[in-house]
Amino acid sequence: MTNLESLLSPLTFLGNLIEEQDQLTPLKEYESWWRAEGMAISEAVDRAGTPWLRMFDQFGTRVDEILFPPDYWKMLKRGYQAGVIWRPFANGSGASLRMHYLLDYVTCFFDAGLGCPYIVSMSTAVPLKKYGAPELQARYLPHLLRRDESVWQGATWMTEAKGGSDLGANVETTARNAGDRWILNGDKYFASNVGAELAIVAARPEGAPKTPQRGTGVSPVNHAQDARATFTPHGLALFLAPRYREDGQLNYFIRRLKNKIGTRSVPTGEVELRDSEAYLLGRQEWGIYLILESLNLSRVGNIAGSVALAQRALADALTFAAGRVAFGRSIIEHPLLRRQFEERFAQLQDARALMWETIHLLDQVWQEIPRYSDRYHLFRLVAHLAKYWTAELAVQFAKWGMEVHGGMGVLAEYSAERWLREAMILPIWEGTPHRQMLDGLEVMERKRAHQMLFEHLAPHADQSELQHISARIEQHLHLPAEEKEAGIESIFRDLATFTARTLARKR
Amino acid sequence: MTNLESLLSPLTFLGNLIEEQDQLTPLKEYESWWRAEGMAISEAVDRAGTPWLRMFDQFGTRVDEILFPPDYWKMLKRGYQAGVIWRPFANGSGASLRMHYLLDYVTCFFDAGLGCPYIVSMSTAVPLKKYGAPELQARYLPHLLRRDESVWQGATWMTEAKGGSDLGANVETTARNAGDRWILNGDKYFASNVGAELAIVAARPEGAPKTPQRGTGVSPVNHAQDARATFTPHGLALFLAPRYREDGQLNYFIRRLKNKIGTRSVPTGEVELRDSEAYLLGRQEWGIYLILESLNLSRVGNIAGSVALAQRALADALTFAAGRVAFGRSIIEHPLLRRQFEERFAQLQDARALMWETIHLLDQVWQEIPRYSDRYHLFRLVAHLAKYWTAELAVQFAKWGMEVHGGMGVLAEYSAERWLREAMILPIWEGTPHRQMLDGLEVMERKRAHQMLFEHLAPHADQSELQHISARIEQHLHLPAEEKEAGIESIFRDLATFTARTLARKR
Amino acid sequence: MTNLESLLSPLTFLGNLIEEQDQLTPLKEYESWWRAEGMAISEAVDRAGTPWLRMFDQFGTRVDEILFPPDYWKMLKRGYQAGVIWRPFANGSGASLRMHYLLDYVTCFFDAGLGCPYIVSMSTAVPLKKYGAPELQARYLPHLLRRDESVWQGATWMTEAKGGSDLGANVETTARNAGDRWILNGDKYFASNVGAELAIVAARPEGAPKTPQRGTGVSPVNHAQDARATFTPHGLALFLAPRYREDGQLNYFIRRLKNKIGTRSVPTGEVELRDSEAYLLGRQEWGIYLILESLNLSRVGNIAGSVALAQRALADALTFAAGRVAFGRSIIEHPLLRRQFEERFAQLQDARALMWETIHLLDQVWQEIPRYSDRYHLFRLVAHLAKYWTAELAVQFAKWGMEVHGGMGVLAEYSAERWLREAMILPIWEGTPHRQMLDGLEVMERKRAHQMLFEHLAPHADQSELQHISARIEQHLHLPAEEKEAGIESIFRDLATFTARTLARKR
Amino acid sequence: MTNLESLLSPLTFLGNLIEEQDQLTPLKEYESWWRAEGMAISEAVDRAGTPWLRMFDQFGTRVDEILFPPDYWKMLKRGYQAGVIWRPFANGSGASLRMHYLLDYVTCFFDAGLGCPYIVSMSTAVPLKKYGAPELQARYLPHLLRRDESVWQGATWMTEAKGGSDLGANVETTARNAGDRWILNGDKYFASNVGAELAIVAARPEGAPKTPQRGTGVSPVNHAQDARATFTPHGLALFLAPRYREDGQLNYFIRRLKNKIGTRSVPTGEVELRDSEAYLLGRQEWGIYLILESLNLSRVGNIAGSVALAQRALADALTFAAGRVAFGRSIIEHPLLRRQFEERFAQLQDARALMWETIHLLDQVWQEIPRYSDRYHLFRLVAHLAKYWTAELAVQFAKWGMEVHGGMGVLAEYSAERWLREAMILPIWEGTPHRQMLDGLEVMERKRAHQMLFEHLAPHADQSELQHISARIEQHLHLPAEEKEAGIESIFRDLATFTARTLARKR
Repeated sequence: MTNLESLLSPLTFLGNLIEEQDQLTPLKEYESWWRAEGMAISEAVDRAGTPWLRMFDQFGTRVDEILFPPDYWKMLKRGYQAGVIWRPFANGSGASLRMHYLLDYVTCFFDAGLGCPYIVSMSTAVPLKKYGAPELQARYLPHLLRRDESVWQGATWMTEAKGGSDLGANVETTARNAGDRWILNGDKYFASNVGAELAIVAARPEGAPKTPQRGTGVSPVNHAQDARATFTPHGLALFLAPRYREDGQLNYFIRRLKNKIGTRSVPTGEVELRDSEAYLLGRQEWGIYLILESLNLSRVGNIAGSVALAQRALADALTFAAGRVAFGRSIIEHPLLRRQFEERFAQLQDARALMWETIHLLDQVWQEIPRYSDRYHLFRLVAHLAKYWTAELAVQFAKWGMEVHGGMGVLAEYSAERWLREAMILPIWEGTPHRQMLDGLEVMERKRAHQMLFEHLAPHADQSELQHISARIEQHLHLPAEEKEAGIESIFRDLATFTARTLARKR
Repeated sequence: MTNLESLLSPLTFLGNLIEEQDQLTPLKEYESWWRAEGMAISEAVDRAGTPWLRMFDQFGTRVDEILFPPDYWKMLKRGYQAGVIWRPFANGSGASLRMHYLLDYVTCFFDAGLGCPYIVSMSTAVPLKKYGAPELQARYLPHLLRRDESVWQGATWMTEAKGGSDLGANVETTARNAGDRWILNGDKYFASNVGAELAIVAARPEGAPKTPQRGTGVSPVNHAQDARATFTPHGLALFLAPRYREDGQLNYFIRRLKNKIGTRSVPTGEVELRDSEAYLLGRQEWGIYLILESLNLSRVGNIAGSVALAQRALADALTFAAGRVAFGRSIIEHPLLRRQFEERFAQLQDARALMWETIHLLDQVWQEIPRYSDRYHLFRLVAHLAKYWTAELAVQFAKWGMEVHGGMGVLAEYSAERWLREAMILPIWEGTPHRQMLDGLEVMERKRAHQMLFEHLAPHADQSELQHISARIEQHLHLPAEEKEAGIESIFRDLATFTARTLARKR
Repeated sequence: MTNLESLLSPLTFLGNLIEEQDQLTPLKEYESWWRAEGMAISEAVDRAGTPWLRMFDQFGTRVDEILFPPDYWKMLKRGYQAGVIWRPFANGSGASLRMHYLLDYVTCFFDAGLGCPYIVSMSTAVPLKKYGAPELQARYLPHLLRRDESVWQGATWMTEAKGGSDLGANVETTARNAGDRWILNGDKYFASNVGAELAIVAARPEGAPKTPQRGTGVSPVNHAQDARATFTPHGLALFLAPRYREDGQLNYFIRRLKNKIGTRSVPTGEVELRDSEAYLLGRQEWGIYLILESLNLSRVGNIAGSVALAQRALADALTFAAGRVAFGRSIIEHPLLRRQFEERFAQLQDARALMWETIHLLDQVWQEIPRYSDRYHLFRLVAHLAKYWTAELAVQFAKWGMEVHGGMGVLAEYSAERWLREAMILPIWEGTPHRQMLDGLEVMERKRAHQMLFEHLAPHADQSELQHISARIEQHLHLPAEEKEAGIESIFRDLATFTARTLARKR
Repeated sequence: MTNLESLLSPLTFLGNLIEEQDQLTPLKEYESWWRAEGMAISEAVDRAGTPWLRMFDQFGTRVDEILFPPDYWKMLKRGYQAGVIWRPFANGSGASLRMHYLLDYVTCFFDAGLGCPYIVSMSTAVPLKKYGAPELQARYLPHLLRRDESVWQGATWMTEAKGGSDLGANVETTARNAGDRWILNGDKYFASNVGAELAIVAARPEGAPKTPQRGTGVSPVNHAQDARATFTPHGLALFLAPRYREDGQLNYFIRRLKNKIGTRSVPTGEVELRDSEAYLLGRQEWGIYLILESLNLSRVGNIAGSVALAQRALADALTFAAGRVAFGRSIIEHPLLRRQFEERFAQLQDARALMWETIHLLDQVWQEIPRYSDRYHLFRLVAHLAKYWTAELAVQFAKWGMEVHGGMGVLAEYSAERWLREAMILPIWEGTPHRQMLDGLEVMERKRAHQMLFEHLAPHADQSELQHISARIEQHLHLPAEEKEAGIESIFRDLATFTARTLARKR
């Protein structure tokens, strides 16, 4: 019979994935802190709902202060101190992001929304490190890497009111070249971690074209191969914008905080850029690649958060089922419920393997710049599959956890309903299921990433299964364009399941 | 290409199910009222969250007043006036409950929680009519059947703090015989429609035994066959308790209102029965049958509400998809999303057929008293399948609707997140999926209800499919008890899908 | 013994002030509506707290919709239908504003915040009528005078983030002449009735000077006498700005709604004027006079609202005291409490007289344009005295009402604490006590308005009292400037009390 | 010109009242903690509103857990650690309560509601120490005197739903003698600090009489003189009830938390005593004396809290006035506002003197038991005067502070409106102004306490003022009973003002 108890701790469940002792110690301390203090804080922050925004101080000066309770800031800073940002940068050139995602995992087991600030901070630090001019790095990077309470946060602001998938068409924020800096004007509509000290911002340099209105996805990777230096797909560039101008004034304004169903421990808002000072990251014509690189990082964070939340939902359901008695025994001992737990536990193990592989692949490619290697495209396909599949798992487990709780599951007093509210963002941000499927389709079509995947999986796969799915995909790729797109769902889901199950077998 | 637009109106979607013109007219008026006034009220009630309970007036007198805004009461009364209770009783002996469920359907399309007061009022009126002493009927029934604002509401209070599935063990409310009435004492933990003027209440007459602690489900139907008049399975009886005593004092107390994730338009609370006056319904030893009969009625209401909410979630997603533009066209025109809509629309049609058949079967059996006919057991199996399958559909469609909305889907300002919050109660109340499966299993085992079902479906079924599932079930029923229970999920789901699809083909 | 029962109804208390039967009938209907429906709505609106602002519809289009419940709009429109705006305009040239203020009075007895929309609508209609170009009147005035639900609302937006008293220095909104209209840019910080279809807006025409930084008050009336046509005190002009541009787009934006301690039935917000179309009212150089005229109207509304709220607080305290028993009798029968009621009732009668006189004086001067008559200055002094004195009364009575309720007084479930929350705005908006005193001082100094007041009061006054206070004031006016200002409080309070008591004697 | 800056710190303002250095050090540390951490926590707790009550854990076990955020508990425990309870008990027999009230003062400057838990804990510890049987003291007192986080809290529960002034008539909680303990049954309606581990509870021993229904006040002190051992005025006794029974079960139940306008940092609730175990304190027939002794302690706490809150309201107004600019200078430099600050500062100094004298008098009498000395009656009169006068001051200063803030004063984002919400409880709990006046009247009538007061004040008083007020009082005491009561307000207010001003002169 399965050892379901390993569900109760994120580190126990991750188990021997964590090979290095010097990683395990801070992770264990971090998990202990959550149990001793963080859980109660997190529950209180969720219960308090959307915080207020104090736009002006009482003398009428604009301040845009987010009124979280003090405990929130303590909880938030704890992860930075544990090393969610500074650790990956501490090892010099052979940097691995694993420790970032492991800390994300532990975080999201306890507070699924709190992973977001860490993830977007990393998605700010990495492009600054990779693409920032030396003096820009010197000025800003040390703030992001601090190990104490004075640490700065990052944020990634792309989406505008007309929607997030089709950035090429919908970004209306403009960037004007003003010599040593750029001047940004526009509104960002879903601005996560909205009070951050630094943000990377997608904007359209004056004179750059809008996306030609064809094609299906944001993914411009294929265009890159053909690209000439003078061509800017989608016309976007990526900028770094600090919260305060050089003269100490606010450099952007928070119009309001969004009232969300979940993830209340990350403040999401609307941002107004009004002659905001910003600095170009990388080459102007690479903008969309940099945006997608940033999305790679946060997408993997989403995967880690999804698996962690799925685990948490099962863990709480297990605790409930062990304590609740019906028909003379605890309900975990009822055969049907027991079976359901075991099936979900097995799925969770598959998800863990898929997550881990995605992190490893990212570690191999995250320092690449255009033009990218084949490995990069393999990573992209796996990330699309994993993002889609793990987020779905998180939602379904959270839903099922509520059912296990029965009537208790819908009461705001207890945790079960929270996990569903938290989970629902996971399939949505960093790209909806539709986007994962369509972008996954594209990288298969254009890069034949599925072939690389099958080669990658072959040593561990059931060969007949592998051949079957491989044939289905080849066949599908020969369909007419409309039908290829329309029918992608089931094949994509099966490919994800196959990949996860095969990877789980690998270990 | 599918006519998705029929999703936008409940009556358009139900279409020719409604045969009689005298039903259609009030239904149309009712739907029109919802569009003109009800939708805005419903949205405001949901937004306002859990209402306050004013336990005492300012002079210190206990009053237990639920502080909904005035508009709430207007919205609530509108359905009663439309005939959700009085119409089925207006036709005398050949009464059909169809009009009740049709009005529920329209209600739940606009406000999934508001169906509950109507359903529990019906679940109060029916046993009063079937089992109440003549003078009890004379005193109370007319109040429930009023057609104006003075109408009384009903409620069904069974569950206590230790849980709802195993009533036999968990009901600790006692009933003491006091001549012309009974005196109840105990606490009810999930009391829906908690301010109702009348409630049916499960209680344990003094001296009655607790359930023997064996077996798996609440279902005592099988015992009935062997029962002697002196045997009371589970030791429960069913009582009618008014809100006010004969002397005008409160007859029960509302301890508090529950803070729920959804269904805020039905007040759910905890009730304290303290020497509360009550009247026995039917024979004391029939208690558990009457409870299950009441559950039959509300379970069918749950089915109607689930299909209605599933429709609503699709309808709102469709509206969004028609208005949202990405990559140069509205997203409903994107092949993948279009395909997903069509697939879900087909499933919704199957669900509609399954719902309609369940209502028809109920119409054939709801006036039976123990011992029940075979038809009753067929109804029970279909109701278990339909309750399980349609609630799952409602949740999945609500979830998917949020994904279609993208980031807008998680914002409290818009409707999409509401439907998920509303939906999550549907798999839970009136019995979780686990209970539907296990009780469905039992009625197959003991009554061979699956055979009746297959005969019922045969004229419309794909014969090879029918034979295949029939064989699977027979085989499953020969497994050892533990394994039979543990493995029921997939077979039960497939049977539900098959039944729904076959019934859809019938029309 | 006093007939305290007249406290329970606003119209009973106003009694024979209302001379015309054709006024009494709609007033009575209006009060009846409040009892039958309005009170419950008002209570629910207050309990719901600050409404949400839906800035964007789900497709990302800016809409700035205020999410009050439907009942709110019904309650709001009821006063417009009763004639709070249209009635004073229905009589042609001999127009009296009495009916406006009587309806305000009844409104504020039931909902102190709801008076504000009516008052600012009147403060919009009057300058439009007095100073608007004929085609402007033709286009907009009829909307404000409608008698059905399609009526438009007005609003008066002067204050900016740096403060409201010193408009001359703090208004930074600019107006640019664009031929047939003006283009406004700036932010308004306390914008009452923020969703109004029309607003009058203070702005600074390009090129106009800021206030010279000397002196003590906003009041520029004295300057007017010396003014030449080319001189614009404070550099402000008054504009009319509609909610929608001619092309149907939003003409101003609501940045957010303020979370206020009370008056939740008027939405107060921050407004962004962004190239907003507007129309000049009157002569540009008259701006500050028009602003002050508008303030006259709303200040009298504040007076009516204060007396009404003071009455309501006493009324609720009386109801409580009649029902609450201590030491064997209802507490209203306790000698001390009875005495306190009687003293406050007498004060309330003084306040009623003061209010009524202010309304009558306004009726005599409200159609004047610069340069104003002596009567106008008399009105100003009385209005300053009455605004200060009645608002103080409202707060003190609300506070005392809470004390009468004892512990019940601080509970959000009951009404007593609401009246204090509602009352606290009354001394603040339309000018704080400090402003009333200083502006009152100025009109005494420069216009010798106190002499006019004493002549006005002489027939009814106790002559020795009159001589005493008259001498005190003359003496005070000879003090050095700093001391004159510093010591104004006690003399101003005594003058107000004397005036009120004398006027009460008149009737 | 006045040194208004001393307003900004509670300890600076108290200044040389604190003579001992060993008191000053912990007080300074405590104030520093508030500035560094406590203020932000307090603001967040207020903003979060009434906490939730988790009545049952998810398994259905009653737990009555109050869901404050973790920071609340940290803030709460900080005062206990600083010594608000343990310090006065640390000095043995010559115990002074000064340090308790000084810590209360600092607490209430920062969070007016948080004083309550400390005050009621002291009001629990003192009677336990004075009147508890030795084994009761041994079992419970050490828990209240702990210096770390494990400290227990106390609470004082007297009032029931019918009202708090007339305890003799309104207490319906019964006490049944069960040998080594008593069994209590009843409901407490305003139960401050409702989750406390220990509470003193007023209850009516079986067989004890209700109050004879005559007389005016609760005060039975006069009866005491004539009392025989067998006579129990009001029929009440005082009990100590722990939160948990000896068997670990909850010993009382929290029915709900009250939603109050202010003082959200003390949970106030309704308590159900259901066969609750309790222990008699003192002699049964002394009950009402012990209740009044407990009230003495909390009344002095109310006085300290009122002065502290009045100071805070002025301090925040001063900060605002120093930073807000109008007419070219900060508004604190405007002569009228400056004068108003100075007048209020002088009043605050009077209040400080009055508070300090009350504390000193209490120190002289708090260890007395019936029959009391003359000093005790002097203390009572001064406490009535001070409770009335300082609470009034707190409310008026908070109101005035809002006016200084102008529009900012009514916004929930800033502190000014909070102080008014907090202040309004101060005139109400521990006896309304009416009760202070009537009980003060009684102690003058029966004990001629005013004569003792005048002797006490004589060395410092203006002699003509003293003679004037003395004569007024004597005259008043000769009025007929009804008139004596009806007319007490103005004379009582003048006596309080005179007393405060004279005491201020003393230092």
